[in-house]
Amino acid sequence: MSSVGIVAPQTHCFTAPLVLQCGASMADYTLMYETYGQLNADKSNAVLVCHALNASHHVAGVYADQPDNIGWWDNMVGPGKPLDTTQFFVIGVNNLGSCFGSTGPMHINPSTGKLYGADFPVVTVEDWVNAQARLADVLGITQFAAVMGGSLGGMQALAWSMMYPERLRHCVVVASTPKLSAQNIAFNDVARQAIITDPDFHGGDFYAHNVVPKRGLRVARMIGHITYLSNDDMAEKFGRDMRSNDYQFGYGVDFEIESYLRYQGDKFSAYFDANTYLLITKALDYFDPARHYGGDLTQALANTRAQFLVVSFTTDWRFSPERSHEIVHALVSNQRRVTYAEIDAPHGHDAFLLEDARYLNLVRAYFERIAKELR
Amino acid sequence: MSSVGIVAPQTHCFTAPLVLQCGASMADYTLMYETYGQLNADKSNAVLVCHALNASHHVAGVYADQPDNIGWWDNMVGPGKPLDTTQFFVIGVNNLGSCFGSTGPMHINPSTGKLYGADFPVVTVEDWVNAQARLADVLGITQFAAVMGGSLGGMQALAWSMMYPERLRHCVVVASTPKLSAQNIAFNDVARQAIITDPDFHGGDFYAHNVVPKRGLRVARMIGHITYLSNDDMAEKFGRDMRSNDYQFGYGVDFEIESYLRYQGDKFSAYFDANTYLLITKALDYFDPARHYGGDLTQALANTRAQFLVVSFTTDWRFSPERSHEIVHALVSNQRRVTYAEIDAPHGHDAFLLEDARYLNLVRAYFERIAKELR
Repeated sequence: MSSVGIVAPQTHCFTAPLVLQCGASMADYTLMYETYGQLNADKSNAVLVCHALNASHHVAGVYADQPDNIGWWDNMVGPGKPLDTTQFFVIGVNNLGSCFGSTGPMHINPSTGKLYGADFPVVTVEDWVNAQARLADVLGITQFAAVMGGSLGGMQALAWSMMYPERLRHCVVVASTPKLSAQNIAFNDVARQAIITDPDFHGGDFYAHNVVPKRGLRVARMIGHITYLSNDDMAEKFGRDMRSNDYQFGYGVDFEIESYLRYQGDKFSAYFDANTYLLITKALDYFDPARHYGGDLTQALANTRAQFLVVSFTTDWRFSPERSHEIVHALVSNQRRVTYAEIDAPHGHDAFLLEDARYLNLVRAYFERIAKELR
Repeated sequence: MSSVGIVAPQTHCFTAPLVLQCGASMADYTLMYETYGQLNADKSNAVLVCHALNASHHVAGVYADQPDNIGWWDNMVGPGKPLDTTQFFVIGVNNLGSCFGSTGPMHINPSTGKLYGADFPVVTVEDWVNAQARLADVLGITQFAAVMGGSLGGMQALAWSMMYPERLRHCVVVASTPKLSAQNIAFNDVARQAIITDPDFHGGDFYAHNVVPKRGLRVARMIGHITYLSNDDMAEKFGRDMRSNDYQFGYGVDFEIESYLRYQGDKFSAYFDANTYLLITKALDYFDPARHYGGDLTQALANTRAQFLVVSFTTDWRFSPERSHEIVHALVSNQRRVTYAEIDAPHGHDAFLLEDARYLNLVRAYFERIAKELR
């Protein structure tokens, strides 16, 4: 197994307006994307990889000028890897509203000539999928071999199967959910409140004030990070380990877990955009495809045509296996072909990004099956 | 069952210095407390009720001028209630460092003539117990019929059994834990970081600036509140219920759970002291009686003499039943008399404060047994 090596992002500027679920429309916008592997002659081997909250189009490989900037799913995508780029043409696309290159809150709003800031429309999973479909058009891909994602990326894959049923043969939904729970929404809203009430947020126009609401972003990330790890994993990795031999009797760092979380918060707040954090968490909250079917997920999935691989992780308490069961049950009720695996992994929600032989071998086997269909 | 009716807090000023675990000593300090019922002739019917994070000495009844200010455990303590004030003399005491009357961060530090602020010593569960023991001395109580508490209050009850084994006959530990997990500490530290990084915190000296770090306190309380409720209970009470029929596509309130949590945060930030929040969460983090016994809780509990009632709640994910099992196992290893009950309640950690017939009847039965020993 080796890396896809040096990659370079590409951009495409769309000039036809994109009507969004909120009713607004984006007059023109740019999507940033990367591709790995070769599109075959009949354009049947394309796989779209959708990203989650803090990731981007940079799925695999490194940049020539940034040899340490490894793609976020590099253990999954590459030559000889589970999603094998010698077989498949893989596309990573950065979503609208992101802070990693596609049109987002820190770009100019053509209708005002000013930065979007908090005025950037609250985009949804479905909006992202529509934008991704246009990119597929540009690339000449009428049908994906698979659309794949973990967490929020899994929601996009699921939405693809409902919105463009003819345009994907397989749908791979990892560590995801058909909708957020009240507790999921609660954690998202606390994170948003931390950002919005940071005096440096300035109603989203912090760019104009040359500040960043770092305090709020830091707290938001710390909260998020707790929900990505399992209780057991945190206990195993950190427990009550201390930085020094005795309690400090102050408000600095006593425990390693404090140090770790503060570090994660500091790191995140240095690179992530606050407005992007707000809108992505809203996209998570709003995803609920059964909503227009009286809450009936089976009905919502009735017009899907793809075959499905659904994967969950036992210690994931953010999107627990039960949430995947809901998806699987609804698909089975529709007599769809579904492969479901519940991986007994200790790493909580983050497991979908980590090395786990059973998980990676399962995905490998699934894509080997898809590859056979290509021949 | 009726209320204890109108009650009035009392204070006692202590002038003998109290040496704290941090090494500092409090030259003089005041404890605020309330009592309900009558102390019997041989002073054998006293029960000490220890409070948790955001509560106080006001355990039961109401104040003459505040008829709606009902004590925090009024469903537990009163005439004919589980802890029956016709049988027992019940004491509620406000802990050092609190913001509800006992000496705390918003009081004058006699050694500087200024408000303590963030300089108030980081007190521990053990410090509180020492202070409570002095109050017992003042009241002439050499041995409690029981010391009782839920959550952080349960830690104090447990500490009593180890620190003053001869001074209590029963120890009632509800929804508690022998030490916080990494995840517990993580949530506490995010809350502290939200407060400390609020520009209105001013290093703890916000009193001098006539401001309150409301934003930080609000986020801290929202985080805390999520951990007090069970996932199921939140799903049942709020689910994805919305405030209006459709998504707002903005950052106001879409979901009822957002409205509820923001309201809880607003309310809390209007009355709770930020420095108190910091020090109480540190007291939680630091509690770990097994620490000086190489992590061996059985050894830590070896010199206890009391009989124990330990209660946990199935859906409590803050201090789960497994944490109570640790206490029970250590006590059983020491051949202590232990009654343990795991109440199948839907309300998460908050269940210890709520109406639940099985729970309240269990505590009632236990105290009836204690009452019989008095005769």
